[in-house]
Amino acid sequence: MDAMQRPDLLIRPYVDGDALGVWRVLEPIIRAGETYALPRDMQEQEALSYWTGADRQTFVAEKDGGVVGTYYLRANQLGGGAHVANCGYATSGAHRGQGFARKMAEHSLDAARAEGFRAVQFNFVVEANAPAVHLWRSLGFQEVGRLPEAFHHPVQGYVDALVMFRSL
Amino acid sequence: MDAMQRPDLLIRPYVDGDALGVWRVLEPIIRAGETYALPRDMQEQEALSYWTGADRQTFVAEKDGGVVGTYYLRANQLGGGAHVANCGYATSGAHRGQGFARKMAEHSLDAARAEGFRAVQFNFVVEANAPAVHLWRSLGFQEVGRLPEAFHHPVQGYVDALVMFRSL
Repeated sequence: MDAMQRPDLLIRPYVDGDALGVWRVLEPIIRAGETYALPRDMQEQEALSYWTGADRQTFVAEKDGGVVGTYYLRANQLGGGAHVANCGYATSGAHRGQGFARKMAEHSLDAARAEGFRAVQFNFVVEANAPAVHLWRSLGFQEVGRLPEAFHHPVQGYVDALVMFRSL
Repeated sequence: MDAMQRPDLLIRPYVDGDALGVWRVLEPIIRAGETYALPRDMQEQEALSYWTGADRQTFVAEKDGGVVGTYYLRANQLGGGAHVANCGYATSGAHRGQGFARKMAEHSLDAARAEGFRAVQFNFVVEANAPAVHLWRSLGFQEVGRLPEAFHHPVQGYVDALVMFRSL
């Protein structure tokens, strides 16, 4: 799905006025606790402080004037590890399966290149989150690590998490 | 090297009065930039805030009244990942090769068990740091991930970092 197919999707930097829209995307994901290692009872201010922290750039994907997705881009480590980026993505439940996550991922790879990063690393991809694993693989990410039973899924119990990596 | 061989080594919780002693251990390691992904110009207050943050327990290894080593223990992730611990260790340059790091590591595994953690994960072991890799392997840690050229070593250039993991 390329940009020509989605002239209505705008990916742009986060501004303060996006806070509620971003929270509406994040809250159900955090409450479900199935994909992100965040406290399921995390409150709005804490979640927004995390997602839009000073150590990262945050973007929103906007469609018809509403926030349908969001992602952040940051250095995964400091010092000698600062050339590898890390990102987190979230798509509104009502807008999944429409290619928005892929568009955000492609946008983030371009943004990471523009910032001079040499690679992107995902530290903790819950393997049970099959759509995410499939998407990252299709975008050239490789599984470089497997963390045994590192995630406690609310339905499936202890499941593995993957470390995924892609050079830029 | 068991405790009987080192009756003079005391590992105990960090207190504010240890700040200078801990900094004296950390500073040369940070300045060298060969083992930790931290900014080489990191200053004392920032480093101590990191090492002794509210999200972790910090310990010191004391010998003859001086701090010869220090480590922290924290949850590696929040929410569904909070059952896996993460630790960082540092030993004074003048006291390496004497088994202090091993004593701290053993202490940290006991402390992690006591806190109810199910495993310990090291996110970023610089492979070029052979003594560390050897020590973790000897303590039962396995390489569960390899991050290609994820660390820029000041002498060796881009080198791999390892993800190491041990169940408790």
